[in-house]
Formats: sequence, C-alpha cells, structure tokens
Amino acid sequence: MNGAELLRDALLLHGVDVCFANPGTSEMHFVAALDAAPRMRCVLGLQENIVTGAADGFARMADRPAVTLLHLGPGLANGLANLHNARRARVPVINVVGDHASTHLAYDAPLTSDIESLARPMSQFVRRVSGAGDVRRAVAEVYRAAVSPPGVATLILPADSAWGEAEALSAPAAAATPVMRQADAGGVRRIAETLRDCRRSGQRPALMLSGSALRATATAIADRIAQAFDARLVTETLGGRMERGQGRVAVGKIPYAIFSALEFLKDIDVLVLVGATPPVGFFAYPGAPHRLTRGDCEHLVLCAPGEDAVGALGALAAELDVPAGVRPRLQAARGAGAPPGGTLTAEAVSQVVAQLLPQGAIICDEAVTAGGFLYLHTAASAAHDYLQNTGGAIGNGIPMAVGAAIACADRKVICVQADGSGMYTIQGLWTQARERLDVLTIVLANRAYAILQWEMRELGVRELGENARRMLNLDDPTLDFVLLAQGMGVEAARAKTVEDFLRLMRFALARRGPFLIEAVV
Amino acid sequence: MNGAELLRDALLLHGVDVCFANPGTSEMHFVAALDAAPRMRCVLGLQENIVTGAADGFARMADRPAVTLLHLGPGLANGLANLHNARRARVPVINVVGDHASTHLAYDAPLTSDIESLARPMSQFVRRVSGAGDVRRAVAEVYRAAVSPPGVATLILPADSAWGEAEALSAPAAAATPVMRQADAGGVRRIAETLRDCRRSGQRPALMLSGSALRATATAIADRIAQAFDARLVTETLGGRMERGQGRVAVGKIPYAIFSALEFLKDIDVLVLVGATPPVGFFAYPGAPHRLTRGDCEHLVLCAPGEDAVGALGALAAELDVPAGVRPRLQAARGAGAPPGGTLTAEAVSQVVAQLLPQGAIICDEAVTAGGFLYLHTAASAAHDYLQNTGGAIGNGIPMAVGAAIACADRKVICVQADGSGMYTIQGLWTQARERLDVLTIVLANRAYAILQWEMRELGVRELGENARRMLNLDDPTLDFVLLAQGMGVEAARAKTVEDFLRLMRFALARRGPFLIEAVV
Repeated sequence: MNGAELLRDALLLHGVDVCFANPGTSEMHFVAALDAAPRMRCVLGLQENIVTGAADGFARMADRPAVTLLHLGPGLANGLANLHNARRARVPVINVVGDHASTHLAYDAPLTSDIESLARPMSQFVRRVSGAGDVRRAVAEVYRAAVSPPGVATLILPADSAWGEAEALSAPAAAATPVMRQADAGGVRRIAETLRDCRRSGQRPALMLSGSALRATATAIADRIAQAFDARLVTETLGGRMERGQGRVAVGKIPYAIFSALEFLKDIDVLVLVGATPPVGFFAYPGAPHRLTRGDCEHLVLCAPGEDAVGALGALAAELDVPAGVRPRLQAARGAGAPPGGTLTAEAVSQVVAQLLPQGAIICDEAVTAGGFLYLHTAASAAHDYLQNTGGAIGNGIPMAVGAAIACADRKVICVQADGSGMYTIQGLWTQARERLDVLTIVLANRAYAILQWEMRELGVRELGENARRMLNLDDPTLDFVLLAQGMGVEAARAKTVEDFLRLMRFALARRGPFLIEAVV
Repeated sequence: MNGAELLRDALLLHGVDVCFANPGTSEMHFVAALDAAPRMRCVLGLQENIVTGAADGFARMADRPAVTLLHLGPGLANGLANLHNARRARVPVINVVGDHASTHLAYDAPLTSDIESLARPMSQFVRRVSGAGDVRRAVAEVYRAAVSPPGVATLILPADSAWGEAEALSAPAAAATPVMRQADAGGVRRIAETLRDCRRSGQRPALMLSGSALRATATAIADRIAQAFDARLVTETLGGRMERGQGRVAVGKIPYAIFSALEFLKDIDVLVLVGATPPVGFFAYPGAPHRLTRGDCEHLVLCAPGEDAVGALGALAAELDVPAGVRPRLQAARGAGAPPGGTLTAEAVSQVVAQLLPQGAIICDEAVTAGGFLYLHTAASAAHDYLQNTGGAIGNGIPMAVGAAIACADRKVICVQADGSGMYTIQGLWTQARERLDVLTIVLANRAYAILQWEMRELGVRELGENARRMLNLDDPTLDFVLLAQGMGVEAARAKTVEDFLRLMRFALARRGPFLIEAVV
C-alpha cells in the first residue's frame, strides 16, 4: 500500500466520502488510489473555485467535511476565494493540495510555489505531509482541525509521500465523532443578569445569532427568550445557513448599506452574541463608523463561533426561567403578494420564488443587489434553508448549489444568482449537468455590476464616464446565459416578463435535474 | 487631489496606460480617478485570472507593464494562477490590490484576509501603501521592482490611502526608462574559453536560450556561435515569447515527457545558460532524475534571467571571434505538408495553422498535448511570435491572447487552446468581444484531460475505472464551445473534418475581430 492509498482509507475511516477534485500530474497516485475505491464519490469541477465552493456548500448542508483535491499552488490559488467564503461560514473543509516530490522542490520546476503562504490566509490549519509514514497522523490532525471548531484545514501532499510505501490501517475502528465545544457557564449567568437589568431599566437588548444559532431548534429557543425579555433577534448581513420559513422563527437581517445598518441597530443597548461576532461595516467609508452598533452598546458573548449554540441558548432560557407558556412565534403561511404582471424585476423574481418555493428547498442566495428582496419575500415561504455568500468573495452561488445538491439529493436547490458574480464560476453548471443535480439556477441579468454602480453614486459620482462604464457595465456584449448553460449541458430558457418567469418556474419545479432561467431584470 | 488620483497620474507618468481590471467597493475611488483620465485604457475581465493573464500577455508583447486592478485578497487570489505564469515568464506586471481602509482592518470585516501572504508567492515585490502621502514613493518603487529585472510587483492600496488628500505631481518629468542589467564580462571570457576547449576536445556544447535570448536578434547571434563551435541551440519546454518562423533561426525545444527530455539532452557536455536556468523535470517521477542534463554536464551562465541577452551573446561572439562569413541559418519557406483530408486530428490542426499562418501573427499556445505538433509544424511558417504557458498553471491561453491583442492591435492573434484548460478562463472570450480584439481561438476539443490520462498510463494504469474517468474525462456532457463563445458575443463554428477546418480557418483569417473554431479532434 502506498501513501495515497492510505490517505484515501484514512479519509474514508473519518467518514469523508465525497471528493471534489481537479487533479494534476502530481496527484496521479492519489487519483489511482481513489479509482480503486468506489465508496469515495469523486466530483470534477472545471476550475478549482467550483471545487472549493462545492465543498463549502456540501459542508453547510451535510455538517461534515468533504475533501478537495487541488493541484499545487496555482490549483489551490484558483480555489482560495471560495475557501475564503467557507472560512467565513465556519464550515469544515479538508483540502488535499498535491505538491512536487520533496526532493524535487529545490529545483524550482515551473509549477513550484510557496503553498503554505497561499494556504494560510484561508486555512485555520496547514500541514505538509513529511512522507508516506506520516500520512496516518496527518489525516487525524487535519480532520480534527477541520471539525473542531469547524473550519478550513489544508494538507499538502508531496508526490513522494503519495507514492512511498506505507503500512495499511491495522485497526479500522471508527474515528471519534467531533464534539461541539460548550460555552462557558459563567457567561450564561452574567447575560441572564444583564437581561433582567434591561427589563428593569428599559434598556433594549438583542440576540445576534450566527452559525448553529440559526438552525430552527436554536431560533425557537432564542425567540422564547426574546419574547420574555423584549429582545430583538438579528443576524449578520450574509449568513452561512439559516433554517427559516413556515413553522420557524423569523430573524431580522442587518442591511448591507452602511447607513441602513446603523439605523437598523441604533436602538440596541445590549447585544448578546450567540455564535456571532460584533457587527461591523462590510466596507469602511469616509466618516462612517466601523462598528454598526452604537458606541455605548454593550456586547456580551453567550457562545463563540463554533460552540454549541443550542446548548447555550437552552441554558440561558433555563437560567432566565422563561415561562413554559411562552411559545416561539413560528411563521405562518401567508398569501405571498403576487407580483404585478408585465416587465420582470428583481423584486418580482423574488416574489415568484417565494410563492412557488417547494417544501424543504435550499436557497443559495448570490443575488447581490436583489438579495434584500429575496430574503424579505421568502420569510413566509415553505420551510427552507437559506445559504449566502458569507465572505463576500463573489462567485460562490453556482458552486455552493453543487455541494448542497450533493449533500441533499432529495431536496430542490434554488440558486438565485446575480449575473456578474455568476460569471466568476459559470463552469459549475457543467458539474450540475454531469452529476444530474436537482438545481434550478435563476440568473438575475441586470447586465451590470449594479452594486458597484450604487457604490459610485454613494461616492457622489452622478454620471459614469467611459472608463467607469467599461469597468462596471456588462452590456457590451450582452451575456447570453441560455447559450452558456446549454453549452455546458444544462437546459435553459429566458424570461423577460413576469408571466414568462412564472411559466418557466412552474416548468422547472415540476421536473428534476439542472435547469437555468435567465431572468432579464 | 486624492491618493487614487495621484496613483493614476504616477502610473501614467511611468508610461503605464493600460489597466486590466475587476474592481470592487474598496477600489471605487480609484475607479473614479481612472474615469477622469481617458488616457488610461481600462479593460474589464469577468474574473481576475482573465485580468492577470491579459497583463501577462500584454507585457510579453509590449515589453512594458500594464497595471491590474484587483479587489482585496479574494480578488488577488482569483488572479494568482496567471500571475504565477507571468512570474515564470519573467515579464513586468504591476498589481494594484485594493484593501479595506487601514482603520477598518482590526474589525475583521468579511472580506478581510492576509493579502501580503497571498501576494508574496507570485510577486518579487509586495508593498502596502501607508497613506495618500506615500502613494508617489510607492509607485516609483513598484514600477522599478516590476521592470528591473522584469517581474510581478504588487501594491496594496488601502481605501483610506485612495481617498486621503495627496499633493499633485509637481514636476511631471518623464520617469527613467528601465535599463537592462548587463551580464558579467568575466563570465563571457570563461565561456569563450570553455567553448574553445570543447572544440579541441570534441565535447558537445549547447546554448540554452530563454527570455530576451529568444528574440530574433539574439537567436541570430546565438546561431552564428553555434555554427562556429558545433553547439546546439535549445530552449525550455514552455517559453514566454519566441520570435521564429521564416527569416529566423530555429531553436529546439526540450520535450515535456521526462524520458524524451533526458534523451534530447543526453549528448550535451557543456550547457551555456543564456537567460535560462538549468533544465529540470516538469514533475518528479519515481526513479527519474530531477535535472534533465547528464549528471556530468557542465552548466555555465552567460547571462542571468532578466539580463541583456543580446549584449551578452554579442560580447561572446566578439570574444570568440566568430568569422563575419558565418551567417545565421535563417528558416526558409518550405511547403508545409498538407494534412490528409477527412477526420480532423490535433496534428492536422497544427498543419493547417502552420500553412495559413499570417505574417506577424502571435501564437498563444495552450494546446497542451497538441503543443508539440504545433511547435513542430509552425517552424517554417511566416515569421511570428510564439507564446506559451510558462508556469504550467492552466488557463492562460485565452487571457494571454487578450493582452497580446491589446499590445499589438495590428497583428493577428491565434490562440490554440486545449479544451480542459480553456474552460478555466473561458470568460476571457467576452473581453475579446467587448474590446473587438483580433483574436482567433482554436479549441482542440478532445473532451478529456488527455495529458493526465497519458500520465496515468505512464503510472502503469491500463484502464481507467469509474472514479478516474469522472476526474479525467470531459465527455459527459460534451462541452459545446460554439454555444459558449456565442453566449459571450464571439462568433464561432465547429469543424469535424480537415476540410471544415480549412474552410473555417480561411474565413476567420480573412476577417478581423474575435472568432472561435471548435476543432473536434
């Protein structure tokens, strides 16, 4: 048995059985090893940002890591943007990055680069395998680093560690299941005391939820606390995964625009962080503050990111003695406002999606400027998961949908994708076709980097000149997403009116398999 | 004037007047500054590897840097693979990477990452601007670092350095022109002595040419030396830019496959490096050596990469007293073997390209497995430049063609592109359409990562299993490059026979503007 075969077996032992890959020559021994193990599902991405974005989407929905297979420094580099998003989503991802044989590095062959330096900014753990005999230990370490607390962990696999002789796993006992870290009990008591003080003094508290605090079990507890102590429930602008819709609790999202965000949070005197970090501006602007809460707002940590939010919220509810009669306010079905007919708009797209959303759907939201509408209108849709671009590195919608669909083969994935960011990883449509994934992609084609045009207006620029138009418009030539999808084996059609879009949505939702609608808005 | 405006003016002062860009919010002040300066040509890429690959192609043909505009760590990361190729091509590129305002970094906003760590592996110079008052000095430093010796140089521009107040350039005198470094004269004398020794002792010398030693002026001198001293002329497997074809000297390329490369170089006793580094295996293989020359082959440096190869070769020819009667052996036109009709093959594509190649064409070769045929058959084509993927990071063909076409608007650019690597940066076709570039893209559609299948066979794998097929084949579904091109505004057609391909080539060469031929091979 060689190191590559041992690596494969050790990953399978840890339950890692999906490999998103774009291999190269230095990874051929690992490819051969995977080839001999049908238990590992290998999924090819045509560019590494598809690979890593799919691993992110998989982890968000499966709550366990997939492994990526990447080709040296440049292959890793191509996938870093979506690893950045995965890092910000705090989900487990294991990267295996091939490298030259260790004896070859000194010769500075063309593909040589400093892989560690590239990996570190997006990884909470980076480790180079030092020989076939080191593979077993390396896998145990990288797995532990990826799951507890969840994050991106990167293993660099030199070719000679892959082809060198290794000993087979002798005792294939199951690997230990990761245990979620518990929050500090002292914090619970202090926060309970502060919430009681707020009730006495009339100060306004809020719970800011993130990570596992956005699952339905957690939001239900949080809402009982919120009712009993007149607290608001808020969450970050772009979140990793939220269980919401009918039968679940609604959580308010901090708006993207800095002054709207400040306005949204200005009444909060005490902010209890539940798996969240203090809210800050997505960008800085001259004269605007960095933190989004008021300067005198008190921040308290109930549990840190990666810690057990359900446990911490439960402990807080118990400490606060929230009466059993206080039931979570679960979202009821309500007639979604049907959009007026005629010309299609981003808001009308959101209204139709909200109205037709199937039970258990997974929404991948990279709608960018239209994201606000989508979140708003789907609040009372059938129960669903809502996944967003957590790190702001654009191009994660289509790949994330790939990974979510592989994690949840029986659920419909609906990717609402802005056109500019969609072009970053358009190649992911091919993987959707290859793997027959049940993904509906809705491209919002406004033919511009609309959010940047908005930012330019905020800067005081009234009218774009030639150079700004050349950098911020996408209208010359017009991108034809129907042809692009068809070119990658995905059926597609275009909607220019609300009636078109309704008809196509009904058609797409009645079938399985990938489909794309270009919604011209 | 703010820092962004000063940055723009300082770049223009240094003659940097092409900006390949994909900006984001943190770069809006620089976008506004560029918008007010029509002298700067701003070219949008739909993903950053288009941006950086175009800057590489531009520098190869223009011999001067363009500037890239990239959005924080993830935007830089997306462009690193083609910066890797530019680094290996040793061409000048200036990156401007926007970052959060310096006061915002401590808050770890979603897009925050360690930009320096990401930039260093692919940059020979990385520098963060420390305020608007520092812009002027920073530009002088980054420009010098990019041009002498040529390489990738990266400037990190925090948003507050862009929006802060700066003093206008007071004395807009032209910036100093970069002077190419001269090789050490002592080396010339020692090499001359060795070459004379070789002639006496019957040892076989070779000159290995790279960088500026592959321009026609340099190869002509090298060939005179080669004739007088029975030396071979060789060059690396994948080169940055070579002037070749009719009226120029032929240089032999080291084959990619390790054992062919060893065979190719085995008769060489003394290797004189002219802007080149010692040849090493592209990858390591169990049991194969790292260096490609024989263990007892002597390596001598005539000039280092980035030094003046024409000057060094001239000095060596003078020192050796090569008789004036020894004229360079310039390639004559020869009837290119017309391919047999019928089914199209990669070799037939190369033969047709060779036969129809217009005078002054620029070939961007990312043909991968078919690259050997292309180089072979175009040896006696009309004079042309030949550009390759120097770093082995796939996906540089289409973007490089963008940059080459912008540098040389009056020359036909022919990009011969493998399908698998072409999909990495397929978005570059849109920029070709947007900028009306005279680029003909020929996609060699063999519907596989054929080079990796070859590597698997070399490993001893006789037949691919399901997992290997899922990672190395591109046939399910078939990629339709005609639809993909049309989807991005580039006219396109498919050829399945030699006759089809000939007809389409004649059509494409008779017109200007982007066109794509999918050659099914």
